[in-house]
Amino acid sequence: MAKIDHVSPLAPAGFPQMPRIGGVRFAAGAAGVRYQGRDDVMLAVMRPGTAVAGVFTRSATRSAPVLDCQAKLGGASDGPAAILVNSGNSNAFTGHYGQTSVAAVTAAVAKATGVAPGRVFTASTGVIGEPLPHERITAKLDDLAGTLSDAAIEPAARAIMTTDTFAKGACATLEIDGTPVNIAGIAKGSGMIAPDMATMLVYIFTDAGFDQGALQTLLSKLTGTTFNCITVDSDTSTSDSLILCATGAAGVDATGNAAFESALHGVMLDLAQQVVRDGEGATKFVEVRVTGAANDADAKTHGLSIANSPLVKTAIAGEDPNWGRVVMAIGKSGAAADRDLLSIRFGEILVAEKGWVSPHYREADAAAYMKGQDLVIAVDLGLADGRATVWTCDLTHGYISINADYRS
Amino acid sequence: MAKIDHVSPLAPAGFPQMPRIGGVRFAAGAAGVRYQGRDDVMLAVMRPGTAVAGVFTRSATRSAPVLDCQAKLGGASDGPAAILVNSGNSNAFTGHYGQTSVAAVTAAVAKATGVAPGRVFTASTGVIGEPLPHERITAKLDDLAGTLSDAAIEPAARAIMTTDTFAKGACATLEIDGTPVNIAGIAKGSGMIAPDMATMLVYIFTDAGFDQGALQTLLSKLTGTTFNCITVDSDTSTSDSLILCATGAAGVDATGNAAFESALHGVMLDLAQQVVRDGEGATKFVEVRVTGAANDADAKTHGLSIANSPLVKTAIAGEDPNWGRVVMAIGKSGAAADRDLLSIRFGEILVAEKGWVSPHYREADAAAYMKGQDLVIAVDLGLADGRATVWTCDLTHGYISINADYRS
Repeated sequence: MAKIDHVSPLAPAGFPQMPRIGGVRFAAGAAGVRYQGRDDVMLAVMRPGTAVAGVFTRSATRSAPVLDCQAKLGGASDGPAAILVNSGNSNAFTGHYGQTSVAAVTAAVAKATGVAPGRVFTASTGVIGEPLPHERITAKLDDLAGTLSDAAIEPAARAIMTTDTFAKGACATLEIDGTPVNIAGIAKGSGMIAPDMATMLVYIFTDAGFDQGALQTLLSKLTGTTFNCITVDSDTSTSDSLILCATGAAGVDATGNAAFESALHGVMLDLAQQVVRDGEGATKFVEVRVTGAANDADAKTHGLSIANSPLVKTAIAGEDPNWGRVVMAIGKSGAAADRDLLSIRFGEILVAEKGWVSPHYREADAAAYMKGQDLVIAVDLGLADGRATVWTCDLTHGYISINADYRS
Repeated sequence: MAKIDHVSPLAPAGFPQMPRIGGVRFAAGAAGVRYQGRDDVMLAVMRPGTAVAGVFTRSATRSAPVLDCQAKLGGASDGPAAILVNSGNSNAFTGHYGQTSVAAVTAAVAKATGVAPGRVFTASTGVIGEPLPHERITAKLDDLAGTLSDAAIEPAARAIMTTDTFAKGACATLEIDGTPVNIAGIAKGSGMIAPDMATMLVYIFTDAGFDQGALQTLLSKLTGTTFNCITVDSDTSTSDSLILCATGAAGVDATGNAAFESALHGVMLDLAQQVVRDGEGATKFVEVRVTGAANDADAKTHGLSIANSPLVKTAIAGEDPNWGRVVMAIGKSGAAADRDLLSIRFGEILVAEKGWVSPHYREADAAAYMKGQDLVIAVDLGLADGRATVWTCDLTHGYISINADYRS
């Protein structure tokens, strides 16, 4: 296992002061699934009537817990609900034994909390291809259920970490019709523990009420411009799960409320960017802004082509304002581009326009800009109004060390 | 510029003994485009009636010489033909000045050799975004034309290198209707000179005769299973060019001849694999064999997803038999897969089957296998008969050093 003994240089100052979310209680504990001396399991229980929405990895080899959650979403929404997550073992590619483990954990959660099995959502993250020692988890469930507290969201965030270098949380508070409404979310990723993939788990809670179907529609929409716009290394996890729970404890319904949507988007974007800031080996946080594309989908294709390019990412690591590699990434993306209409900026510095380097460009200016920790690469295609913004980090020796230098 | 002072550990023993190709003469010279103390320009002139076929990068930001070659192919095929290549400057993203340079070089080649401008094919490889100092090339053309020789293919191969660590050549000889026919090809790639892309140039010559249209069809077909099945880092050059010339000097027509097709495929595959063996920082050569896919296209999608995955490539660099990352790459590819029908082999070692690790798998066996220099990862999807093989190399600290540690 790769030993991570530092915090990412891109980490925020600390875990935020999070509001308590009425109708949600958390517990964290140490089940010893793989790690020793730390919490590795978290339980969240939501009050009856909580609406639950989710989005998941599209991987064809997704894990047993992901398949189980997908089957349960859209089911009954009247009783209480629960989420159980373990770290240290992803229960992915574990054959039919994977379903057996999910069923065992689900049954134990149901027994300990009184939540119906069809409303118990589980996730596992960590080593893949090894059977989940689910009996270690089920043995802890009575303890967990006995210590549930609406103040324990930070321990929950810590329990789901694998090789994340910091715990990730984000929150928002707003008023709807004069009533305060809170949103609080936690995430893990994109640390790595050999031989894992860069898995991402996200759980967001609000005390607003929400129509179940509308909640799913809203979550899917906002995922498109947040978690689906980040990339560390272009590799897709078999475990990615994002669940959003609306308890209604605040006594106000937020269905269709624009301010709520905006606040939720902010929480999701904050968490997504924290995942990038904890990217393996990352030393630079990079925002890629694409405008002027033929349409928004083309803009995202160009943006992800730039953000995933090993040559662009190594240039950033080297603090090299290598705009030629940005041109290359646009050219290879498959989306529409016209060399002679293209312009490229590093921060505010106009680097290239009209199919060539800008006449006012001075390499020294861009080289100085690239020494910053938070960078913006802006590309205008000059074709139409399509736009997208994606976020990534650089590709460094640290990434190679984490993923190649340690044996599983 | 990154200083490459070693030869790739995956390089062949030496440049092959190449047959002379009737109807083709070569010259190499030092024009000082960017490099000093080495040849950086090569000229090839082919006899009248030579059929010429080509395939090129699909990049939307492809270089001026690529656009020029594409416009000329399919034109007249009765007179002589010429190829002029410089290294050190790619004449890419140089605005309208790029076309001016191509026109100047083309005109000078035509004047020095008597070849019609419409039959002069040029290529440039090296730094991008800087104007090509074409007058240095045109000043050398009379010298080059005066030293053309049918024995100079190896100097030609050396003149087109950028940061390749070895010159790349491959050849074949066969008989058609009792007449000996020769094929000889040279290539450059995937070395890097900051701030370049990993450009690939390939020139193949045969003394067989060939119908012009049929030659293009054959070249396009064989490219699909050779040069389009290799990847170093998933980044696509703006300059990739592959030109095939059939002079007819051997006095036999090879149109539709199966033995010729097989020999040409062998030469193209050899050159393609040499490009991978010179991949930046490569220490392992990896063949990814995919069988049992829903169709051949799906098989190639899976193969390239595995071959391009940073997590798979770093695991290989670390000699880690990390089959979980292969499962991940299959899952994310977007092509059809069924976890429970999948099997994975490292060499002859069955690693995973039926959705889980094989009961006979011993990690120590696979770990020993991964210490080899030439590796095979074989995946069977268990769905149908689709198959594809792709080739790649590992992702190492050397790649980061070449692309991040040196400033342009």
